[in-house]
Amino acid sequence: MIKLVLDAMGGDFSPAETVAGAVDYARDSGHTIFLVGQSAAIEEELAKHDISGLNLPVVEAPDIISMSEKPAMAVRRKKNNPMVVGMKLVRDGEADAFFSAGNTGAVLTSGHMVFRRIRGVHRAVLTTPFPNDKGLHVLGDIGANTDCRAEWLVQWGHLLAIYAEARLNIQSPRVALLSNGEEEGKGNDLVRETQALMAAEKDLNYIGVVEPKEMMAGEADVVVVDGFTGNVIIKTSEAIAKYLLNVLRQEILARPLAKAGAALAKPAFKAAGARLDDKEYGAGMLLGLNGLVTIGHGRAKRDGIYFALKATAQLVDANILQKTQAKIETLMQQQSERGDAS
Amino acid sequence: MIKLVLDAMGGDFSPAETVAGAVDYARDSGHTIFLVGQSAAIEEELAKHDISGLNLPVVEAPDIISMSEKPAMAVRRKKNNPMVVGMKLVRDGEADAFFSAGNTGAVLTSGHMVFRRIRGVHRAVLTTPFPNDKGLHVLGDIGANTDCRAEWLVQWGHLLAIYAEARLNIQSPRVALLSNGEEEGKGNDLVRETQALMAAEKDLNYIGVVEPKEMMAGEADVVVVDGFTGNVIIKTSEAIAKYLLNVLRQEILARPLAKAGAALAKPAFKAAGARLDDKEYGAGMLLGLNGLVTIGHGRAKRDGIYFALKATAQLVDANILQKTQAKIETLMQQQSERGDAS
Repeated sequence: MIKLVLDAMGGDFSPAETVAGAVDYARDSGHTIFLVGQSAAIEEELAKHDISGLNLPVVEAPDIISMSEKPAMAVRRKKNNPMVVGMKLVRDGEADAFFSAGNTGAVLTSGHMVFRRIRGVHRAVLTTPFPNDKGLHVLGDIGANTDCRAEWLVQWGHLLAIYAEARLNIQSPRVALLSNGEEEGKGNDLVRETQALMAAEKDLNYIGVVEPKEMMAGEADVVVVDGFTGNVIIKTSEAIAKYLLNVLRQEILARPLAKAGAALAKPAFKAAGARLDDKEYGAGMLLGLNGLVTIGHGRAKRDGIYFALKATAQLVDANILQKTQAKIETLMQQQSERGDAS
Repeated sequence: MIKLVLDAMGGDFSPAETVAGAVDYARDSGHTIFLVGQSAAIEEELAKHDISGLNLPVVEAPDIISMSEKPAMAVRRKKNNPMVVGMKLVRDGEADAFFSAGNTGAVLTSGHMVFRRIRGVHRAVLTTPFPNDKGLHVLGDIGANTDCRAEWLVQWGHLLAIYAEARLNIQSPRVALLSNGEEEGKGNDLVRETQALMAAEKDLNYIGVVEPKEMMAGEADVVVVDGFTGNVIIKTSEAIAKYLLNVLRQEILARPLAKAGAALAKPAFKAAGARLDDKEYGAGMLLGLNGLVTIGHGRAKRDGIYFALKATAQLVDANILQKTQAKIETLMQQQSERGDAS
């Protein structure tokens, strides 16, 4: 039986929605879910549900880190926050993985503090499944590292491939590097340097660079990018989607006949919305630490939390942590054989 | 009377659509438009229109640069291409500005070769009007420079403000720097360094950093970004828009009732499409050269070419080149007064 830890206080709708999602998932899966946070508030929410026979231990962690706080400072000042307390349960072997929909920066800081990087990992990488025309691919780094080196991106290619296999059930995932064009000479210095290194890499199904167009066409299973650009891509995508639907709504509302038509088409709009909604792929992961940490959207509600917990359990099942550690061992060995151990 | 030069062979639908757009605009404006390219093909297109009383001189430039050619090489090897020949008309005082919907890289190379940078300009910046919830803003660099320095971005802030005034009729435009978050410590090294410099800049209405969300909400009139990220933003926006409309279409087609509704709503979809279409704001500009060069989308058709020529004439009318040169003079003077002339 898998044991997950949930930051019950993380996200815009906590603890009501976090607890509700945990109750649903505990019932469906039979797994244990530790609920970490202000126990009085958590118990109050639990009392609203039928939890007989479910494994939902509550763990007290009174400090609260808000979405607007400076992560590094807040985590250090408030030691008894649900992130640090929850991650320690995993570190000490009480549980298998930790999930939070709270302040991403605080999760990154807590994760590094509690778990430390796997020996040989240059930097931990934040990744998320991202939708495309054909299904999903994995995109990373999406914001943990803003100024990156080529060798980090190469290592992330390997780690994200492991994640794509575990999360999306893809064998030997096609790994690409994001660039602004495929022609020779395109890309920035980092992209050009990384391209050369990736092409020479063993045991990596590297297929070259992709532009956003090819990424959205589903031509790669893993898209590697520096964390500044990756974060801008995520945020631009959300902003453009919102803008587009807004324009469409305005034009529809301006036309009575179109308005009637749109009412008929509403189920299609809703279905499209559901496909675009990130709840199914809302659990990103911080890869490269000695502990399994997944991260969800602050706006996740009951079903978003449910899906994130489910995805986290899937990663536990797939032994992603052990596979990551083994892969890093292999990479270090190859490196020392090449004589460029660092 | 304004004299414009059109690369009649540039773009996916040349010379038919380029010539047709030029005929339309010459008729409406009374301006002269030089049509540069393979004269036989151009004359053949002109014969299809009533051009009596219009000023549409044809200038022979037999070499063709395709969209797929490597720009730097092609421009140098094919000296008699419409870009170089057309720009020389501007350089030699025969015309006021040059427009092309052809290979952007080739326009950049030709522009630098024929006009050279204005003395004191670090790098020329490629910019375009970009739609937001409230109207339009100006985004640059969108791809001329992939690896940038902070002082380039600061200078671009000034140049793009001049462009926004001329093109969008905005007085003292609000200038922002694109970042992945507003909190302290967000951004990459380049953004953080540029932030500090911009905040200290005279005569610049700098309002701080914006995320893509605020950019799309129309919170800034000018958004400055390095050319790699800027290009990725443009390309991600196009890819996401296409993806979204695709998802919506699939979900509508899967439902007979929604299909009927969508038929009624079609005019609204069309109107939304027109608002998203870039033909109204399809003339980007390469700022910082000793010559006025505008660049359009390769897929521009008759009306796209028309609007681009109109926008180019507007920039001539606004004396954008003279204003740019004067601003650079002032900046250099301020710099030498601070004692850090370079």
